[in-house]
This record gives sequence, C-alpha cells and structure tokens, in this order.
Amino acid sequence: MDFFFNPNGIAVIGATDNPFKGGYHILNNILGGYKGRVYPVNPKYDSILGLPCYPDISSIPDDFDLAVYFIPASSLPAAIEQCGAKNVKGIIIESAGFAEVGNEGAELQVESIRLARKHHIRLWGPNCMGLLDGHTRNVFSFMYTDEWKTLMTPGNASFVVQSGMLSASFLMMMLERGGMNISKMCSIGNKCDVNETELVDYLASDPHTDVIGLYLESIVEPRRFMEISRSTEKPIVVLKGGRSPSGAKAAMSHTASLAGNDTITNNALKQAGVITVHDFIEMMDFMRGFSMTKGSRNSGGTAIVSFSGGGGIVTTDFLHDSNLPLARLSGETLSAIKKVFPPWMEPANPVDVWPAVERNGIETVYNSVVDALMHDDHVDSLIIHLFSGRMDTEMLKPLAEMKDRLEKPVIAWLIGTGDRFRIIRKELEEMGIPVFEEMGRGVSFLAAVKKHYQGKGQLP
Amino acid sequence: MDFFFNPNGIAVIGATDNPFKGGYHILNNILGGYKGRVYPVNPKYDSILGLPCYPDISSIPDDFDLAVYFIPASSLPAAIEQCGAKNVKGIIIESAGFAEVGNEGAELQVESIRLARKHHIRLWGPNCMGLLDGHTRNVFSFMYTDEWKTLMTPGNASFVVQSGMLSASFLMMMLERGGMNISKMCSIGNKCDVNETELVDYLASDPHTDVIGLYLESIVEPRRFMEISRSTEKPIVVLKGGRSPSGAKAAMSHTASLAGNDTITNNALKQAGVITVHDFIEMMDFMRGFSMTKGSRNSGGTAIVSFSGGGGIVTTDFLHDSNLPLARLSGETLSAIKKVFPPWMEPANPVDVWPAVERNGIETVYNSVVDALMHDDHVDSLIIHLFSGRMDTEMLKPLAEMKDRLEKPVIAWLIGTGDRFRIIRKELEEMGIPVFEEMGRGVSFLAAVKKHYQGKGQLP
Repeated sequence: MDFFFNPNGIAVIGATDNPFKGGYHILNNILGGYKGRVYPVNPKYDSILGLPCYPDISSIPDDFDLAVYFIPASSLPAAIEQCGAKNVKGIIIESAGFAEVGNEGAELQVESIRLARKHHIRLWGPNCMGLLDGHTRNVFSFMYTDEWKTLMTPGNASFVVQSGMLSASFLMMMLERGGMNISKMCSIGNKCDVNETELVDYLASDPHTDVIGLYLESIVEPRRFMEISRSTEKPIVVLKGGRSPSGAKAAMSHTASLAGNDTITNNALKQAGVITVHDFIEMMDFMRGFSMTKGSRNSGGTAIVSFSGGGGIVTTDFLHDSNLPLARLSGETLSAIKKVFPPWMEPANPVDVWPAVERNGIETVYNSVVDALMHDDHVDSLIIHLFSGRMDTEMLKPLAEMKDRLEKPVIAWLIGTGDRFRIIRKELEEMGIPVFEEMGRGVSFLAAVKKHYQGKGQLP
Repeated sequence: MDFFFNPNGIAVIGATDNPFKGGYHILNNILGGYKGRVYPVNPKYDSILGLPCYPDISSIPDDFDLAVYFIPASSLPAAIEQCGAKNVKGIIIESAGFAEVGNEGAELQVESIRLARKHHIRLWGPNCMGLLDGHTRNVFSFMYTDEWKTLMTPGNASFVVQSGMLSASFLMMMLERGGMNISKMCSIGNKCDVNETELVDYLASDPHTDVIGLYLESIVEPRRFMEISRSTEKPIVVLKGGRSPSGAKAAMSHTASLAGNDTITNNALKQAGVITVHDFIEMMDFMRGFSMTKGSRNSGGTAIVSFSGGGGIVTTDFLHDSNLPLARLSGETLSAIKKVFPPWMEPANPVDVWPAVERNGIETVYNSVVDALMHDDHVDSLIIHLFSGRMDTEMLKPLAEMKDRLEKPVIAWLIGTGDRFRIIRKELEEMGIPVFEEMGRGVSFLAAVKKHYQGKGQLP
C-alpha cells in the first residue's frame, strides 16, 4: 500500500498544459510537492511544465512505481498492459466512466481488474481524486486549486472518502477553518480494488495518523472492517451516504456502491466502536475534536462554565439529551467558587461566571473556577463558554495542561466578532481545546469522546 | 407597549462616565441612536457625556416616558414612586438581584410590581438587557460594545429573549455573519410584568416584523401565547431553555422561570404552529431563512442540484429523515437536462451537474437545469449546492426571481474559501436565497418552511 503514498517515480497519463483540464492540475499538484521522478505522458506534447513528455507509457525510459490515469476510460486496459512492462505497482485511476455509468463501464472495470491482477498492479479508484499527504506533501489529485500549498500542514487526521469534493474544495474550506491538519486524505471513488477496509488497516498502523474519518457509500468487506475498527485504539468516524432508499439509489450512479441496509450497517458500526455522523461539517467537527483529545477518565459528570445563564441552561439541556450527567460539585469546589462570586449568588453547576467577572475581573474568576472544577473528583469533563472580545487565551494555559494530564476532556463554545474571534479560536485549538460554533454539536462530540474512551471491543 | 420602543424622553438611572460600568454604556448606546430628550441621573455628577446630570429623578425638570434603571435592586421601589410623579409610562430594569436570587429578591420584585401598577407604570425586566430597534436605532442596553453602530441595519426579524447574551455579543456575531437584519430585539429577563406573550402580540401586528424568534425559559401565559401563535401568519421560532430537569433548575436561578413540563409545552407549541429549535445557531439559521422566504406552494417534491455526487446523496438522506419527498422529475425536465449532460450520463434527481459543467460551462448548465426544474410541476422546492470559487451569482438571478413568483422555496449549500466565499454568500442572501453551512440544517429548515406554509391553525 505504501507505494501509493511514497512511490518511486510517477507517470501522469493524460498530462496537458491546458489549465482548464484536470490532467494539467494532476501534474501541477505533483510538481508542487512530490520529490521523485515525474513522467508526463501525452502524444500531443514534447514537454509540459518543463518536463520531457512521452507519447506513451512504453516510451518512458525507466521503471516507475505509480501511474496516475486521467484519459478516457476505454484506454485503461491497454495502459495496464503497458504499465505491467514497466513494473508499475499501482495505478490511481481518476477518470470516470466505469461501473457508475452502467453495464458497459462495469465490464470495463472488471476487465481492468483482471489485467491488473495478472501484472500484480493494484488499482486505486476509478472515478476518484487520488490522495493528499500532509507530511510528504504528495498531492496526486486533479483538484483545480493549489490552495493546499499554503493551507496544508502536517497533521494527525486521515480520511478515506468516496467523494472527490471532500478531498478537494471542501477539504480546502476545512483547512482554512483551521484546528485540524491532515496526515492522509484518500479519495477512492468506485474502489474497484483498493478499498476502505484495506486503507483503514493501513492507517490504523500509520504512525502519523491518530484519528480516521470515512465517507462511505458502501462497505465492501464489512466483517474485516468491523474487526479492524474494534481492534484499533484510534477513533474512527464514519459518515455513511445512501442511508435512505433514495440516497442508496443515487449512490449506485455515483460510485456504483450497493449501499445496503442502513439499520444493519449502523448497528454493526456502533458495535465495532465506530463513531457515526450524518453531516460533512459534523464529520469535520468530530475529526477536529478527536485530533486534539488525548483521553477521558469517565469517572463523574460534566461541569459547565458559562458567561450567560441562557448558554448554561441550553448546554445543560443538551447534556441531558446525550445522557451525560451534570457533575455534582464537591463542597470544596463550591467554597472555592463562592470566594470569587458576589455574596448574593449561590454557586451551582452550570457555573455562570458573568456576575463574578463583573466584580473580580475575568482572569481571577476563570482561574479560580477552572482550577477548582478540574481538580474536583466529581468532574470528568468541562465545557467552557468564552467570549473572544473579553479574553486573553494566556489565562487558559493551565486548563490546557490539566486537560491532558488529568484526562478530562475540555471543549469550548466561543462567540465573538472579527479577526479577534478567529485568532482566539486558533489559539484555543493550538492549546488542544476544540472550539464548537454549535453548542449541541460540542455536547454530541463530548458524548462521543466519553463513549470512545469507555472501552470499545464488546462483541455483539 | 409602543412607549418602550419610541419613548418621548428617557431618564438613565445610574448613568456614569466610567466606561467599565454598564451605566456608561446604557447612556452611550442611547446617545448613539435615540433622537429624543435624555436625562442622566446620578448624584455624583453634574454632567455626563456632555449632558446635564440630575442627582435624582425628582430633579428632572420635565416629564418623560421611559426610565432605564441600572442601580442596585433595593432602590427600585423608591425610583418607581419618583417616576410616578413624572408620568413615566415604563421602566426598563436592567439590574439583577430580584426573583432570580431567592426570596428576598422575589419579595422586592412583587413590591415593585404593586407600586408600578399603582402609578400605571409598566415594568420591563428586571435582570435583562433592554431592547434594540434596527429601524429607529434605539438601543436601550448596557451592552459593552457599540459594534451595533456599524453592524445593525433595518430588517424584518424580531426577537424576544430571556438571555442578555443573545441580545448583545451573540447578536453582534450574527449581524456580522449577515443575511438577517433585525426589526426589534427585546431582552426581557425575569419578565415580572411585560412578558413574551404581550410582545409577540405586539410584534404580530408590527409592520416591520415578518418573523419572530424567542428564547424562553418559561411561558407565563401559555394559553394566550398559543392563541396568538395560531392566529398570526408570521413564522414564530421558539428555543425553549430548561427542557431537561437539570436545565429547568438552572433556569430558576437565571430568570426565576418555572420551566414547566417540556413534553406538554412542546406539543402545545407544535399544535399552535410554532417552529421549535434547540440551539442558538439553529434559531438564527431558521430566522435568517424565514426572513427571506415568501411562501411555499407544497405541491410536489424537492429537487437537488449538486456539483458532487456525495453531496447529493447525503442531502437525499436528510430529505428522507425529514419526510420530504424527492421530486420525480417530468419527462420534459429530464429531456431538458439531458441536452447539457454528457451522453453517458442519465439525468436523475439529485442532479449532479459536475460532469455537465466540465463539458458545457457552469452558466449554461446551471441556467438550463435550474429553469427546467423550477418550471416542473413535480418540483415545489430546490436545494442548490454551490462552490464559491467557480461561480458568479449573476447566473442565479432568474432563480431568485422564480423562487418568489412561483412560491417555490430555494436554499443553498455553499462551500469555498476566503473573502470570495463570504461575498458569494452575501450576494446569494441579498437575492433572497438563504445559505446554510450544514446540509442537514438546510433540509430541516426547508421542512419547517413547508410545514409552516401548509396551513397552521389546526386545533389540537
């Protein structure tokens, strides 16, 4: 599998110098990061982007590990044969026109697999956008933007998706949002050979990957997929497309995926300890949160620090919806909080610090309150509401340290305006405190964290 | 009720020139918009912010309609008596320390109501942040920021909230996000006299208000509230805080609200045609959407235009979750779409336009597809996925026009990066097409629109 991510030499079949075509962007993206040998292939050119261009695969003077294929589907069998002679190990087929378009395409796909097996070549795709690697900066995708050059930094979140959008424009939007950086992004399309199960297996032992997210329209080796999910300690977040009968029908013409019975899949995934989500942004919120969460001791309830009574109440309602207990604070904690509270106000969880902040200043209050709560044995997690306009993240450094040391997950709900909002959000997430725009999402994430660290692996 | 929004003269009891105190901001905010007479009251000053300051209410030379009160709770009864002598019509009490802090405060609140009735003075609050009016620019709030001066423009969304945060920092964040502008924002705190029911009644006949959002911790006149909700054509969106037992307990110490039995409240609200939501951002997403939606004929299903197979599939799954039928496209529509599709691709709903765009360009494809769908009798609503990096909103002008004329609601899911994303989002929303960051949220909103226009008022 490693030759897909770190190939010794790449041919780009269908490279062009026309920036309105995908073949240009594949080559341009490869040249933007990949350090090895690159061979553009196209009979129409002598050279492209400063590299000699070859009329066909056979004319390439050296052997190479990987071919990226972006010419019409029908030429694939011939290309596989030629790649066989060059000792190619894998082909990433980014063209469409295979099983997703009907019988003829499906036959072409079957024939291609047969030929590839004969030559011991692994096929990735077809009908996909290849891969990106945040560490090596290998980008083998026809993505039309090279925003990745500035937005992509090495991270610990890896993805396997059956949607090019998620590995291209949507990914760029998420990288710009910040807080999550990627290790490997794999867009696998029709997954005629390399599939999600094999990749999850690979990522489960990838030292650069701590959390795995998948958008799947089907699971082709469900039993093995569940086994791997059950045995890895890494959180696996799955968004399943085609949960509904009409969605399943659409999945058939998208990636030729047999979406299967949703109830069965969903139960099996849950039993295997997989975290299931329904929305793309939800998947990213969970991935970002898990990428900066080290553990959860699960030995009490959640404390809420709010600067708004209403915010605390609504968060409490969400905790109830998710069956997360609200921590009963110890007498010691209540006394510590009382010291910074106005005399007329009785401390309680949720801890509404606003009147205390008005009285004693934001730093004194947050420091005392947060310290008391985090050291309370009845508190195993903390939700903190923050307003970017009135804070300096410096005051939360002790919290960030305690969170990992005590294995008590912390999430923040942040409001505010302008650049300051984005700066504070960035600083919080660099400290390892994930920020949620939606309170309900934050609480669902916390529930997922607690469940994940409660121990998976119970057999059905 | 109108004297609260358009008073003839205002006294600010507790005005100061210390910008670290709320009394400064009340005065500063009033002076930033209000056009009438203003009387600061504080025995410590001769003048504040260029205005003569009076040692007490009795020293004010003229009568005035409204007092904004921001000194300790215990002085309220005396202030009411003095206001009585000045023919004051209403007092907005922004100080805390009343029923929400226990028995003593509750008694003070009861005594204040008794005195106010004697003098025919209406009380707003206590423990609240007053009001903002997007049309008059009257801002009677101790909000510490004057960002409203640049962010607030006249709109058609009005709010009644039992949370100062929602009428201050959170509101500023939402105004900065754009797409929704406010008519009246009412923060009513403990609502000891003026309550949500009276305000909804007022807003239901306010010509500047088309949609009403409420954050409530209790409903004090539930029967009348339901009657008004049932009889108005305006969408009413309610977020109820204190749905859970622990949330209800917290509501008691926030605004002294008896949150009541959630199941009963929720059913009654639904029967009255109220749209219920659970999260603050969700409330704002719905308010924004309704503020730009004119109607829904509800005579078919939803069409999806997507640039990503995965996006279309996940949206289809959400439609199924919300019991919204996917439109069965007419033969005529399918033929029209086929003309711009590549020959190997069979048109279907969701309509994945990406391969067609690659072939025929974005404008031709979107124009043909959108026109065919909107004129199909089987289509009563449209979800359009857009990528800001590859579009000009000009091409969607016909869609915006058709949406209102044909009463077929349209929502957009937009992805993209940088300023361009925000510009396109702004342009779309100025055209009346609400943009959602979360697909699932957009579909829930569409379900709420369809339900709202299906006719309300069925009796339980």
